[in-house]
Amino acid sequence: MSSAVTQTVTNQIDAERLWSRLMDMAKVGATAAGGSNRQALSDDDADGRALFVEWATAAGCTIATDAVGNLFARRPGKDPDAAPLMMGSHLDTQPTGGRFDGVYGVLGGLEVIESLNDHGIETEVPVEVAVWTNEEGSRFARSMMGSGVWAGVMDLDEVRSITDVNGLTVGDELDRLDWAGDVPFAHPVSNYIELHIEQGPILENAGTEVGIVTGVQGLRWYTINLEGFPAHAGPTPMDLRKDPARALHEILAGVYAIADDHAPWARATAAMFRSDPVSPNTVPQSITFSLDLRHPDKAVLDEMDARMRALVAEAAGRHGCESSIGVDNDSPPINFAEACVSAVERSARSTNYSHERIVSGAGHDACYVAAVAPTSMIFIPCEDGLSHNEAESIEPDQAARGVEVLYGAALELAGGS
Amino acid sequence: MSSAVTQTVTNQIDAERLWSRLMDMAKVGATAAGGSNRQALSDDDADGRALFVEWATAAGCTIATDAVGNLFARRPGKDPDAAPLMMGSHLDTQPTGGRFDGVYGVLGGLEVIESLNDHGIETEVPVEVAVWTNEEGSRFARSMMGSGVWAGVMDLDEVRSITDVNGLTVGDELDRLDWAGDVPFAHPVSNYIELHIEQGPILENAGTEVGIVTGVQGLRWYTINLEGFPAHAGPTPMDLRKDPARALHEILAGVYAIADDHAPWARATAAMFRSDPVSPNTVPQSITFSLDLRHPDKAVLDEMDARMRALVAEAAGRHGCESSIGVDNDSPPINFAEACVSAVERSARSTNYSHERIVSGAGHDACYVAAVAPTSMIFIPCEDGLSHNEAESIEPDQAARGVEVLYGAALELAGGS
Repeated sequence: MSSAVTQTVTNQIDAERLWSRLMDMAKVGATAAGGSNRQALSDDDADGRALFVEWATAAGCTIATDAVGNLFARRPGKDPDAAPLMMGSHLDTQPTGGRFDGVYGVLGGLEVIESLNDHGIETEVPVEVAVWTNEEGSRFARSMMGSGVWAGVMDLDEVRSITDVNGLTVGDELDRLDWAGDVPFAHPVSNYIELHIEQGPILENAGTEVGIVTGVQGLRWYTINLEGFPAHAGPTPMDLRKDPARALHEILAGVYAIADDHAPWARATAAMFRSDPVSPNTVPQSITFSLDLRHPDKAVLDEMDARMRALVAEAAGRHGCESSIGVDNDSPPINFAEACVSAVERSARSTNYSHERIVSGAGHDACYVAAVAPTSMIFIPCEDGLSHNEAESIEPDQAARGVEVLYGAALELAGGS
Repeated sequence: MSSAVTQTVTNQIDAERLWSRLMDMAKVGATAAGGSNRQALSDDDADGRALFVEWATAAGCTIATDAVGNLFARRPGKDPDAAPLMMGSHLDTQPTGGRFDGVYGVLGGLEVIESLNDHGIETEVPVEVAVWTNEEGSRFARSMMGSGVWAGVMDLDEVRSITDVNGLTVGDELDRLDWAGDVPFAHPVSNYIELHIEQGPILENAGTEVGIVTGVQGLRWYTINLEGFPAHAGPTPMDLRKDPARALHEILAGVYAIADDHAPWARATAAMFRSDPVSPNTVPQSITFSLDLRHPDKAVLDEMDARMRALVAEAAGRHGCESSIGVDNDSPPINFAEACVSAVERSARSTNYSHERIVSGAGHDACYVAAVAPTSMIFIPCEDGLSHNEAESIEPDQAARGVEVLYGAALELAGGS
């Protein structure tokens, strides 16, 4: 991607400091394969946050937390009581996580604050960097937990009772680490901007340097079960079978056609295939698989849902099978506030970096924050779109470009001069 | 099926005796759900054989076994040294087996002998009923073991060393039960006719009373593996995926088209589906499934194999996936001797029962015996084609018709008058 640089960094930020801090943070919980392992509410996660607090405090920020351990580093504004401009993301990682997922948004926010310091800029409203607790949901299986509780979407007591594989609860660990503070949930925020690696290949493939994220795709997870009749693979003629595998291939073909009809944003992912009985010479009695459908427009997602349901029923019926469809997850699309998106876009335009509007395919803390405050996100490409992987990789120039755009947007929204 | 009777039984056999013996044998190892559990080389299997020996001895037969425990009940002919006409099948069952699979062929053979006695007929050559050891292969996992060793296809020592789940070997049980005798393997047999329930729905659906079996389908079992790239279901555009599920549905569609192109005898059964990782929001890295292809003509089976291989490679390639195809079983088609098949057909014609030539989709002891002696089989319909199931069912009239046809064929081939 280095070859795609269209403009040198404008030096409003300190790209070397940013990169060096990314590399220093990656040493906390570093894995042998070059990634990071700072699972939520672990000692490594605490060490990472302590390092961030050290840097933020040195940059003049005050530190506070809320009852679910979300951490807020605040740089005062001219009006110290005004609702702050918030940036941020998370410092926890997957067990074999990369160096940039989440971390980049937190340290990018810190770099904005330090650059404001460097330029002697006092903003109208405070500028805050949020470190959300347990975004990954790998150790404690509730992703975006901190932002979810903060935004009022999740219940604190319920979240505190979630256990890890060793039986420790979120509450146990919050108490042990002394992370629970008194910042009120959903405290006033004027705008929230989350900087993140794309975790997908769209920007890289298009050669685009910065993505202006307009929202997050809605998604529905289904479990589809097809029930046929287990007959002997030899004596049973093809036309006398009730074979769920014959329904399966028609359903899959139809599901991918639905996605193609709503290109480029629709997604259809079939996975978790299994069948019974485990016998090569018996027509399967049942086949089960998961289906993940996504689209940024709820009306389209509803249409995809309806077409898929008709398709499953028809294909199953055509082959004498019964079908059932369970819904395991139904997350509506998130549309970010246009004013906040536009501010990011103006900043991107002023940098002359190539940029395009993009929809996030994955969930982020911004999804929950968007329920409380005008929100947008900034994406930068990452190598091969790879994430949740120790090989996750970005170039220093790419990292700098995203923070440049964040800096400009923050300056506008926080009222700096 | 009773309504499909086109002719009353000609009374060459004793239908009531036949049925009563089938019901008596079903009491040995009877299951609560109405089936039988006489797994190979168990005490129940031994009890079933003892009951058969009692009946056969009372009918004037001499009893002998070979080293793998195959049991032969022989009625002498005018020439006691001539190669006998052999009938038979097996008395062992699946753990939740039915009352007729195998048993019907053994007791049908015994009924032929008793009817010859009733009519005072002395045949030119001896008439023999074989009870083959461990046809099912459920307790000791080698199906058609007895006939396989007898025919020289399997090695006795190897077979004796096969263990059940408790670590007991075939050899242990043969010795414990004292089943091993001195009849030479592949002893001369003039013709072999195996009477069996169809275990499929073809005759029942056609309303045909008797099937003249011309051979057994060839089969090939494959394990097909498709390897893609595990990408996030949200951010990864459809056209940038390497999704093995997209290859899967094209392969399945193509495989069923291959079967349709070679209707009515071709069979294609895809089963044992599994995929990794077990995650609903990740494009599968790999999908594996089994494929069972069958056809009675080796040239056609070869063509099906070639088309399937091309199809898998093309579909995988089209979606950026790697594919591999393992062969787990390759059993060539068996073509029974036309003279033996014709004798059965003449007998069926003389009874005026509706009959048709049919290919067996499943393997039987007759497959191995066919390597040693001219062989054919007779099928009768069974309810819904159901077998390997406690609910396996036939009507007494159906049972009688099959034995009538067997009787006529035996009379011709053994030279009775």
